[in-house]
Amino acid sequence: MTEIGERYERGWNLLKTIDGEAGERVIASLRDVAPDLASYIIEFGFGDVYARGVLSLKEREIATVAALTALGNAQPQLKVHLHGALNVGCSREEVVEVLIQMAVYAGFPAALNGIAALRDVLAERDA
Amino acid sequence: MTEIGERYERGWNLLKTIDGEAGERVIASLRDVAPDLASYIIEFGFGDVYARGVLSLKEREIATVAALTALGNAQPQLKVHLHGALNVGCSREEVVEVLIQMAVYAGFPAALNGIAALRDVLAERDA
Amino acid sequence: MTEIGERYERGWNLLKTIDGEAGERVIASLRDVAPDLASYIIEFGFGDVYARGVLSLKEREIATVAALTALGNAQPQLKVHLHGALNVGCSREEVVEVLIQMAVYAGFPAALNGIAALRDVLAERDA
Amino acid sequence: MTEIGERYERGWNLLKTIDGEAGERVIASLRDVAPDLASYIIEFGFGDVYARGVLSLKEREIATVAALTALGNAQPQLKVHLHGALNVGCSREEVVEVLIQMAVYAGFPAALNGIAALRDVLAERDA
Amino acid sequence: MTEIGERYERGWNLLKTIDGEAGERVIASLRDVAPDLASYIIEFGFGDVYARGVLSLKEREIATVAALTALGNAQPQLKVHLHGALNVGCSREEVVEVLIQMAVYAGFPAALNGIAALRDVLAERDA
Amino acid sequence: MTEIGERYERGWNLLKTIDGEAGERVIASLRDVAPDLASYIIEFGFGDVYARGVLSLKEREIATVAALTALGNAQPQLKVHLHGALNVGCSREEVVEVLIQMAVYAGFPAALNGIAALRDVLAERDA
Repeated sequence: MTEIGERYERGWNLLKTIDGEAGERVIASLRDVAPDLASYIIEFGFGDVYARGVLSLKEREIATVAALTALGNAQPQLKVHLHGALNVGCSREEVVEVLIQMAVYAGFPAALNGIAALRDVLAERDA
Repeated sequence: MTEIGERYERGWNLLKTIDGEAGERVIASLRDVAPDLASYIIEFGFGDVYARGVLSLKEREIATVAALTALGNAQPQLKVHLHGALNVGCSREEVVEVLIQMAVYAGFPAALNGIAALRDVLAERDA
Repeated sequence: MTEIGERYERGWNLLKTIDGEAGERVIASLRDVAPDLASYIIEFGFGDVYARGVLSLKEREIATVAALTALGNAQPQLKVHLHGALNVGCSREEVVEVLIQMAVYAGFPAALNGIAALRDVLAERDA
Repeated sequence: MTEIGERYERGWNLLKTIDGEAGERVIASLRDVAPDLASYIIEFGFGDVYARGVLSLKEREIATVAALTALGNAQPQLKVHLHGALNVGCSREEVVEVLIQMAVYAGFPAALNGIAALRDVLAERDA
Repeated sequence: MTEIGERYERGWNLLKTIDGEAGERVIASLRDVAPDLASYIIEFGFGDVYARGVLSLKEREIATVAALTALGNAQPQLKVHLHGALNVGCSREEVVEVLIQMAVYAGFPAALNGIAALRDVLAERDA
Repeated sequence: MTEIGERYERGWNLLKTIDGEAGERVIASLRDVAPDLASYIIEFGFGDVYARGVLSLKEREIATVAALTALGNAQPQLKVHLHGALNVGCSREEVVEVLIQMAVYAGFPAALNGIAALRDVLAERDA
């Protein structure tokens, strides 16, 4: 197995662990137009960065949810990582806290749109 | 003591615990032009939001450092919260991980400017 | 009545005056997932900040519409405050001017998306 | 013919050449609420800036697609300029490259949302 | 006089009225590298947009200060328009209110950096 | 040589070709605090993405300069890539065109700050 293969395999396993079906759908959606972007997400995003350790996956998802909520222009990816946060051990209450805290740093609209994303994610999970 | 007084006191204690001298300097800098903004930071930001519990202060600082790095337009506040993260129990290695992870979600320039802020903060702390 | 109660009451009255039904719907939408975020919007956003005086409510809504248009990632909140601006005395022509001016500072896409939001808001009001 | 008329005519011809029907729809959509904004887009955006030469129209569309993808809050305008890029000589493969490159500078969510916009644009063109 | 000449003259007079010396320095700074960008600022920004009327210059500067504070990546231009706001009739107290209000919509870092810009501007004016 | 080694070598050569000394300084600056971030820039940013072909290096630098100017919060990286654009064949006039065009999509402050960065870069190169 080549070195690139190891990065891909490690990343793919982490992506499935963290983002679950929501993450697999993102990868599948890239197959027709930009399959290499999917490879970079798996190899670099997950195989290199998420695999680094030092932080727990829960801490990494707290960081990602915070960042995507603050940026405010990445609603589909925020939903994937709200699933991710809940998948790796954040409680619903903890996720809500991250979103509320973003009101302080990125303003209330960012927090409100984060809560709207969470409402959709919770509905999916409760269905 | 009035209810407002309790929020202020609770917030001021948390701000000092988390951000330390760097945070106190922010508050002091507002005295002449906008003292009420300082009160809102203390009462709402710390007295209401940081005091909520559910997340540990370490988890809250991870979220804040992630968000400010991703936004990329709040370098002075990022430095305050890099101090904050280190003050409430993040190791230097953990803070570096949060910054590197932001390359995935906000691009390499955001991560690079985060590392530059950290370099300044570490120099201050080592001095 | 506690001090917190006064902030809430003052904020709630201002929110209803400014944002009307559109604002009440935002608050109602938070009840299930993040009711405390609704309280902070009312107490801090309206009870503390909008209640400060010095600027007229019309001037405050001009500032808010300008900011949300420029940020460009807060379309639902922009619609609420386009209602708000019209509710507190801005004419349609004045609101259009604020949106056009944003082309200078945030680019034409920001202004175009602001006009799209206004078109929806005017249709709601004319219905 | 007045000088303003020349800027308008030059801009209108360029807008039609570059953005085609997608651009004409943007202009038409402004007629009721903000027709002057349409004039500024035509006169300043196209009649002044795009008409400057020095760069080819293909290079100008590469710049625009890159910027709108990185900003991440201008999805409708990104779609117009994905059409524009394809209209002035970019291949589909070249457009995909610009979008993938944005992962490096603005993060993977920006690139992913760019690819989603492109998928819609390609479906329209293939229809 | 050509039509372009009228737009330039009208814009230049407005720019001097609003932004004063701070604005003239911006224009002068463009002479060597990008003089045409200076012309567009004068002709389009001031000659077209600021000259439209409907809003008072004070209301226009409130909108601009709000937008630039919220965007958070345009500190030099924010300083020019803080001068502008004060030049066209905003009191210092009114400008502070706009900046504080931005904490609600763009977060506390945006407001803090706005206050820092104002402190510099006030020092210049008091000198 | 391992596969990772090839990505690094290919990336390092491209980084030196494109960004030259300015890019090497970025990598060197990461050695003490976050050397792995330097590796990711070289391996993923240059070894994977810039090495893809399809677009010329000149077209890639036009895209990068446009994106960083529009984002407006990455001034140090914009300077590196203004060097990069000039290194791979853009004339000064072409770079100015990219920056002016950003006024249309991201507003005049973004374009003005881009010109300020270019002025510094040209001064370095003329020294």
